[in-house]
Amino acid sequence: MELWFTEEWLKGLRISVKVNSVVYSTVTEYQRLAIYDTVQFGRTLVLDDVIQTTESDEYIYHESLAHVPMFAHPNPERVLIIGGGDGGTLREVLKHPSVKEATLVDIDGGVIEASKRFMPLWNSGFSDPKANVIVGDGLDYVAKAAADFDVILVDATDPVGPGEVLFAGEFYASVKKALRPGGIMAGQTESPIAEPDVVKSIYDRVRKVFPVTRLYTSPVPSYPGGWWSYTIASIGPEPMVPLREPGDDWGLKYYSPEIHKRAFVLNPKMQKDIGIHDQGTGSYRG
Amino acid sequence: MELWFTEEWLKGLRISVKVNSVVYSTVTEYQRLAIYDTVQFGRTLVLDDVIQTTESDEYIYHESLAHVPMFAHPNPERVLIIGGGDGGTLREVLKHPSVKEATLVDIDGGVIEASKRFMPLWNSGFSDPKANVIVGDGLDYVAKAAADFDVILVDATDPVGPGEVLFAGEFYASVKKALRPGGIMAGQTESPIAEPDVVKSIYDRVRKVFPVTRLYTSPVPSYPGGWWSYTIASIGPEPMVPLREPGDDWGLKYYSPEIHKRAFVLNPKMQKDIGIHDQGTGSYRG
Repeated sequence: MELWFTEEWLKGLRISVKVNSVVYSTVTEYQRLAIYDTVQFGRTLVLDDVIQTTESDEYIYHESLAHVPMFAHPNPERVLIIGGGDGGTLREVLKHPSVKEATLVDIDGGVIEASKRFMPLWNSGFSDPKANVIVGDGLDYVAKAAADFDVILVDATDPVGPGEVLFAGEFYASVKKALRPGGIMAGQTESPIAEPDVVKSIYDRVRKVFPVTRLYTSPVPSYPGGWWSYTIASIGPEPMVPLREPGDDWGLKYYSPEIHKRAFVLNPKMQKDIGIHDQGTGSYRG
Repeated sequence: MELWFTEEWLKGLRISVKVNSVVYSTVTEYQRLAIYDTVQFGRTLVLDDVIQTTESDEYIYHESLAHVPMFAHPNPERVLIIGGGDGGTLREVLKHPSVKEATLVDIDGGVIEASKRFMPLWNSGFSDPKANVIVGDGLDYVAKAAADFDVILVDATDPVGPGEVLFAGEFYASVKKALRPGGIMAGQTESPIAEPDVVKSIYDRVRKVFPVTRLYTSPVPSYPGGWWSYTIASIGPEPMVPLREPGDDWGLKYYSPEIHKRAFVLNPKMQKDIGIHDQGTGSYRG
């Protein structure tokens, strides 16, 4: 018997992944959740029929989302992750020896539980004594925090369903207020080639709130268009400049200081589509 | 009625594209050819059920393949394109004012004819007086040429079927012999994330022939894995360094000198997978 999972990537564009076995399938309080073992992507987490993270390329997404802001901050001690219930971003954040506490707030405890049971590649951070894992509303959590974090990472699902509020202007204003002086935030902000209007709209909302806003990209083959964007904003350091080097024993597969700088180099069409003319080519050299 | 074109991207991974209309469909001397108008990719050329080039992202592929070697050469006057019957690479090459003659040799005249009739975005180069378009065997053509070209571009289909011979060691030796002193060659060399073994095998064959060999990448959403590699080799200049700037009136959407340099920055896993340890991080700054 052949089992295929099909995702509607975009209008008129579908990706189909052959499934070796259904590892887990449930309905959480917020969404349908499935974990598949797939031929090309390996273990794959799917929420409401949308691929969230796969064994084959999760390292690109998580290393990009975590290490660019972490290395741009001179001394990140207190880190907050909103969403990210799979644990991949937490795992990467905890590799930084400066971190004293990494708090993860995901609204869906079902995702965290599924990761703990079935996603060993992602879940190692949950058992770290520096990890503070909270099942709760990220929006409320951030709204109540004041000048409490050096780095805030928004590891949200797409801007529809439970994740939608994590892309609103009010949320970014709360994030700014929750940062300590010199703080940095970064979040995943969708596909710059498949949906440039969506990226632009999110980017513009962040830019209205923060004095320094930049866009960076990486490939992520299992996401629509295969090319992903991250918006990073700062009330202090220049995000394009990495300030330290990762350890040789961190096992990084995507991030390096050179990749950090490269990630901010946008092609002419993307600069035009998103309306970015101030992300100069000179300064990224660091 | 819903019409979908499905491509087997990789074992257990399929992409499906909704087709608005079948623009053209035929069987050439060498392969099945179809041109579809699709919802997400726009006009799309398909050979033997494999997407070759699409209106939505052809600019990334053609600008990457053509402009990186063209700008790394100090004065490209005579250019040879092997394959590339759609015309996209030829169109980009002819933007360089130094070019006196651009020869395109594609074994399948059916592809060239289809482009001339149905692919206006790609075919503008065919009518240029500097273009020399030949229907013939690229392998033979290169074998007979001696020190005749400044830049040779291998714009082949995948290394199966008619394109297979254009990835062999003997072919690369002929290409080297066909280059003038200080010449550069570049070719598309498959997906570095989906098929790193294939990329490594091609790269190693080129490296055995040329004194300087480099790998560079770009996203290409309509190709398997969404991330593509190009191998560039030189008997003279350092390919990582762009020597000139494109004109503002060239209408480039992907290439820029900064993108040129960025394209050679490989992430740690790719360096390891392909076995590239000599593509230093210092020199790419140019």
